[in-house]
Amino acid sequence: MAATVSAQEKKAYTLEDVIPGGSEYYNLMPKNMSSLKWWGEVCVQTEPKTIQTINLKNGTKKTLVSLDEVNQAIENSNIACGALTSLSNATFPWAERNELNIVSNGYVINYDFKKKEITSSFELSRGAANLDFCKENGYMAYTVGDNLYIASAKENNRPVHAIRQICPTPEGYAPLHDIVYGQAVHRNEFGIYKGTFWGPKGENLAFYRMDQSMVTDYPQVNTTQRIATLEPDKYPMAGMTSHKVTVGIYNIATQKTIYLKAGDPTNRYFTNVSWSPDEKQIYVIEVNRDQNHAQLVRFNAITGDQEAVIYEETHPKYVEPQHPLTFLPWDASKFIYQSQRDGFNHLYLFDTQVAQEPVEKKLANGSTIKESVKVSQLTQGDWLVQDILGFNKSKKEVIIASTEVSPLQTNIYSLNVRNGKRVLLGKEDGTHSATLSASGTYLIDHFKSFEVAREISLLPTNGKKGYLLFSATDPMMEQFNMPEITLGTLKAADGKTDLYYRLIKPVNFDPNKKYPAIIYVYGGPHAQLIHNNRFYDARGWDLYMAQKGYVMLTVDSRGSDNRGREFEDCTFRQLGTEEMKDQVEGAKMLQSLPFVDAERIGVHGWSYGGFMTTNLMLTYPEIFKVGVAGGPVIDWKYYEVMYGERYMDTPQTNPEGYKNADLKQKAGNLKGRLMVIIGGTDPTCVPQHSYTFLRACIDAGTHPDFFIYPEDGHNMIGRDRVHLHQHITRYFEDFLK
Amino acid sequence: MAATVSAQEKKAYTLEDVIPGGSEYYNLMPKNMSSLKWWGEVCVQTEPKTIQTINLKNGTKKTLVSLDEVNQAIENSNIACGALTSLSNATFPWAERNELNIVSNGYVINYDFKKKEITSSFELSRGAANLDFCKENGYMAYTVGDNLYIASAKENNRPVHAIRQICPTPEGYAPLHDIVYGQAVHRNEFGIYKGTFWGPKGENLAFYRMDQSMVTDYPQVNTTQRIATLEPDKYPMAGMTSHKVTVGIYNIATQKTIYLKAGDPTNRYFTNVSWSPDEKQIYVIEVNRDQNHAQLVRFNAITGDQEAVIYEETHPKYVEPQHPLTFLPWDASKFIYQSQRDGFNHLYLFDTQVAQEPVEKKLANGSTIKESVKVSQLTQGDWLVQDILGFNKSKKEVIIASTEVSPLQTNIYSLNVRNGKRVLLGKEDGTHSATLSASGTYLIDHFKSFEVAREISLLPTNGKKGYLLFSATDPMMEQFNMPEITLGTLKAADGKTDLYYRLIKPVNFDPNKKYPAIIYVYGGPHAQLIHNNRFYDARGWDLYMAQKGYVMLTVDSRGSDNRGREFEDCTFRQLGTEEMKDQVEGAKMLQSLPFVDAERIGVHGWSYGGFMTTNLMLTYPEIFKVGVAGGPVIDWKYYEVMYGERYMDTPQTNPEGYKNADLKQKAGNLKGRLMVIIGGTDPTCVPQHSYTFLRACIDAGTHPDFFIYPEDGHNMIGRDRVHLHQHITRYFEDFLK
Repeated sequence: MAATVSAQEKKAYTLEDVIPGGSEYYNLMPKNMSSLKWWGEVCVQTEPKTIQTINLKNGTKKTLVSLDEVNQAIENSNIACGALTSLSNATFPWAERNELNIVSNGYVINYDFKKKEITSSFELSRGAANLDFCKENGYMAYTVGDNLYIASAKENNRPVHAIRQICPTPEGYAPLHDIVYGQAVHRNEFGIYKGTFWGPKGENLAFYRMDQSMVTDYPQVNTTQRIATLEPDKYPMAGMTSHKVTVGIYNIATQKTIYLKAGDPTNRYFTNVSWSPDEKQIYVIEVNRDQNHAQLVRFNAITGDQEAVIYEETHPKYVEPQHPLTFLPWDASKFIYQSQRDGFNHLYLFDTQVAQEPVEKKLANGSTIKESVKVSQLTQGDWLVQDILGFNKSKKEVIIASTEVSPLQTNIYSLNVRNGKRVLLGKEDGTHSATLSASGTYLIDHFKSFEVAREISLLPTNGKKGYLLFSATDPMMEQFNMPEITLGTLKAADGKTDLYYRLIKPVNFDPNKKYPAIIYVYGGPHAQLIHNNRFYDARGWDLYMAQKGYVMLTVDSRGSDNRGREFEDCTFRQLGTEEMKDQVEGAKMLQSLPFVDAERIGVHGWSYGGFMTTNLMLTYPEIFKVGVAGGPVIDWKYYEVMYGERYMDTPQTNPEGYKNADLKQKAGNLKGRLMVIIGGTDPTCVPQHSYTFLRACIDAGTHPDFFIYPEDGHNMIGRDRVHLHQHITRYFEDFLK
Repeated sequence: MAATVSAQEKKAYTLEDVIPGGSEYYNLMPKNMSSLKWWGEVCVQTEPKTIQTINLKNGTKKTLVSLDEVNQAIENSNIACGALTSLSNATFPWAERNELNIVSNGYVINYDFKKKEITSSFELSRGAANLDFCKENGYMAYTVGDNLYIASAKENNRPVHAIRQICPTPEGYAPLHDIVYGQAVHRNEFGIYKGTFWGPKGENLAFYRMDQSMVTDYPQVNTTQRIATLEPDKYPMAGMTSHKVTVGIYNIATQKTIYLKAGDPTNRYFTNVSWSPDEKQIYVIEVNRDQNHAQLVRFNAITGDQEAVIYEETHPKYVEPQHPLTFLPWDASKFIYQSQRDGFNHLYLFDTQVAQEPVEKKLANGSTIKESVKVSQLTQGDWLVQDILGFNKSKKEVIIASTEVSPLQTNIYSLNVRNGKRVLLGKEDGTHSATLSASGTYLIDHFKSFEVAREISLLPTNGKKGYLLFSATDPMMEQFNMPEITLGTLKAADGKTDLYYRLIKPVNFDPNKKYPAIIYVYGGPHAQLIHNNRFYDARGWDLYMAQKGYVMLTVDSRGSDNRGREFEDCTFRQLGTEEMKDQVEGAKMLQSLPFVDAERIGVHGWSYGGFMTTNLMLTYPEIFKVGVAGGPVIDWKYYEVMYGERYMDTPQTNPEGYKNADLKQKAGNLKGRLMVIIGGTDPTCVPQHSYTFLRACIDAGTHPDFFIYPEDGHNMIGRDRVHLHQHITRYFEDFLK
């Protein structure tokens, strides 16, 4: 993608243009067609003033609902919520009903757009968060503070507006955050992102309860008050006492709660809560504190008794179940289970019928598995399934997203459950994000690639060509003189693994010049910085620095996402070590380029990337001259239990590993210029990381630079993000230019 | 003081040489003769292994005590304290006894060096602090945590080792620092530096009690723990609820405590607690919260009843009593009172006999005074008394320290109380620090000036020449090529007041070069940066920067110390404004010098000087290009009640003044490079100052730099101080050189 138009004709972009939070950022993104949703088999677009249906074959739009109509109905029904200002957030939970559901100003409203009337509405408590609507019973579950509530327009078929607190707070109980109901637990690890789980029939609400009274407070301070105030945060650090999680089930009819009888919750993780289709059973994947043993356990949802251990999996390093069960809509006796047991995340068809004798197998990678039900593998290969989008019931197909075409892409496939046959849906060369219609026959398919700024198609799941509903060009490409961005591979430090890299040459590149170069790095698990996507995922700041005359490189080193378990887990118990070796391969490649000044290599990264940046500056000072490390991990013993111990075990069981990864030990090695930047109340990498690092540098007589965004968290957002990148840029301009 | 030896012959000094905490710092100070003390009329030197007497006429030394002898006596008497390692801290409380007193390893020991035996000894509680020994009764008062204790070897004449807690902690009382006994109160303002006051006969112990349960905690965080911990500090901020102080009196014989019946202590200050010689009365100077009204009040020490208001003083800006009463040793009916009422701190002789009708006077400066006793002024003039050293009883003289020769000096005088005649003691041209013998006839006089590194003399108080006991040269002058340091005056921005400045030219000065220049500034009350002293008080860092090629300037602007009240209080309710104008006069003088690059003026200061530095950078960005502000005040509403309200009143009563001095309001003006440095747990200028300033800069889109010494307080000491100055130096080298 070489710049073909001369520089004079186009203006230069600023940080306001390329940084999220910048004044022009959204204007310079490829235009979008937003809020496309399914109402059963009908594609609808919920815009602020109007909702339109869209014809799947030709894209013809037809108005279904207008904001005025809804507001007229609200006025007629005397609901105190006031007029809506937008319909954008409307959803269509019921394929079979002419009703939309919308939450506005603390009210849940159902509107019949045929009858043009409010069919039901009810108010939520002030401060309601974590809203979870049940389309079966019309209830909304939500939390206020640490407590869980349900609200509805009817109760026991009587039109009574009821708000019920699940598990009322004990008399005289005060401590904030000691016990938390209905929220995501285990710090959102193991695929956990919510804390309420409606039964498929709407008769019960399963929820998480987390007792963290035994977890130490990290003393965060809010300095925006007249006098600074303490805002303690329960933060269990690696090797220290962790919280205790249990799963409760509240029955709507009896208004009673039972808890799953899973035994002592100390040092255990309860993940991927999944209901059976008949709502009589509930499945939980239990993981031990060491995170090397997962059990799929079935409980009776009425009594809470354990019924069976369906499946077990161990791994010499760690297991990491991240997906709930997905029952086949045409056969309630079978579900799809996702496992990385063969080295890649794949789908397995599980029976619910427990066999007499569990089958135990030892795998080549050192894992052992124990199957108490019949299991058959549905997908296989050196690629991984990323998501299950749903089913085409009539054709017995499951629609999945996977990296089968390339680890840099997400493509959508239909997978026939009976014969394993996969059909690629939509364009091959790029990245898809799609939502499936109720029947599973159509996708709203969002497509982007390095070449294509944006295409939205209405795509049948039978493999046929769909209708291109919307496409957009890239305003950046049109308005600015862009740098050349190339994708390539280089060999990892192990001498065999191919790593993807992205190289950006300076705007108005002159091959006879010697440019400074900066590596933008992350390097941690669960992330990948390069995709077949806009600018190969280059961030606005990378483009900005290319315009300022820097060569920009990013390498997805071993340990990063979407390349399988062996690629990822080579970092186990020694975070940083292997990843750095790979980044050094990237740096050497840079130094070998004739247009790069080998003496002016910089590095920048945030969070895990801040850890990598600091580590690279201290471990390879002869290569890296200037670094900016944001919100860095400095010592894994200050990181939280869930993520930290998965990769590092505990400080007690892996003292050597913790010591080697403790950057305070290397504080005396600092030779170049390193700026550490943190959010003053960072709840993820708590400030203790950077403060103890500064202390170590002071003791060692070295001189990092430092900046703090006093009340920001782990990342700077909005206007602060623009300021941040001005600050980072100035640092490289001061010392690397 | 031009460098007369060429540069080649001498080496360059490093920060290790010139910064306290540096490895060579103490070796490069002029040699000293330490631990000279009085034993009645005998001068003794307490060195670690031996104590010697020194002949006042010829300096002949004679051994009085050896460490071995004392340790032999300790062994003989079976005290559990173990052997002493040094006699340096020995004192001679009793002129008439052959006894020394020493505290070692938690034991108070009295040793008779004639009999070579321990005369008494007793143990203190673990953690004893704020030790206050009473030579009359042999008791030691001390604090442990928030509580006050006394201990002794005898009680009621029986040889019982007793430790008594004064005001025992109420049953079930837990909160730390809510109520504090026996410590300095009111944040050490008003001359307060301790919290216990033994009666002159040793029958009673007066002490401060401070209830600060109503004061908000500032949430300081200690990140050196495994998990960061909260270490809250009671910090009353300007305009907010302050602590309540009362004065208790504990009677040794009755073991009972009474409190002075001074009424509701809310919003009042109780200062300068002073006993009457007969121990039957106690005097307190009471100041109102607005600090514009002081009352000298006498209480009955037995009943706690108020007996009389002896004297009152108001001032349109503020009053600031800083000295306790000093009774004449030859006439218990009279005492010396110190007041700034005529514009300079002077001595007044007060009668204790209360007249029927108070005499009220209105002074030209707007003050009113009300005298209920006979008062006569002892000293007068455009200079001020700094200290009362004691009395020569036989000649009815009081020995004082004052600025009479020059505001840059402290000289010692004998002052005849009857006729006011003053006699200068010791050299005129320099700065003295002296201790007086029991009879008041001799001084151990410590003398320094710009020309004289150190001289210690044994000086009679009759004005005759003394014996020069010790003199030292300056190793810095001998070993290094020093810069030229000159003293001068310039006109303040008011066009009339002379200000002193100190100018340092670069080492190896070349008049044809253009040098960058840095102003080192403080600017606040109670401080003066220039004295007739070593290098005119130039700090090591100033010398270091001069060696690096910077011109260094310091100006004692209006508002600073030792120039009288009018000079000081022109800053009232508008801190920063007038002081900055004077500093700008200094900057203009720099810019007028042919060897200064007018475009490269920097500024550095700490605390009030950090406030000034930040303010100058933001108010005069066209002059000041690079600044380093340490521990700055940013907004006086975050500063404490006592100091803050004296100069600024409250945010409620002086909103305009607070707003004008709030540097957050000027955050958008930053043009040059400003680095803010703080101690992460600064208890004086709490971190909130700098964090809210960074926040304001981020919002305004400006870019200060920042550094933090995570667990340091208001100042960096020891090795951190060397690191700090490396860091500051690098900043100027990066951006001003």
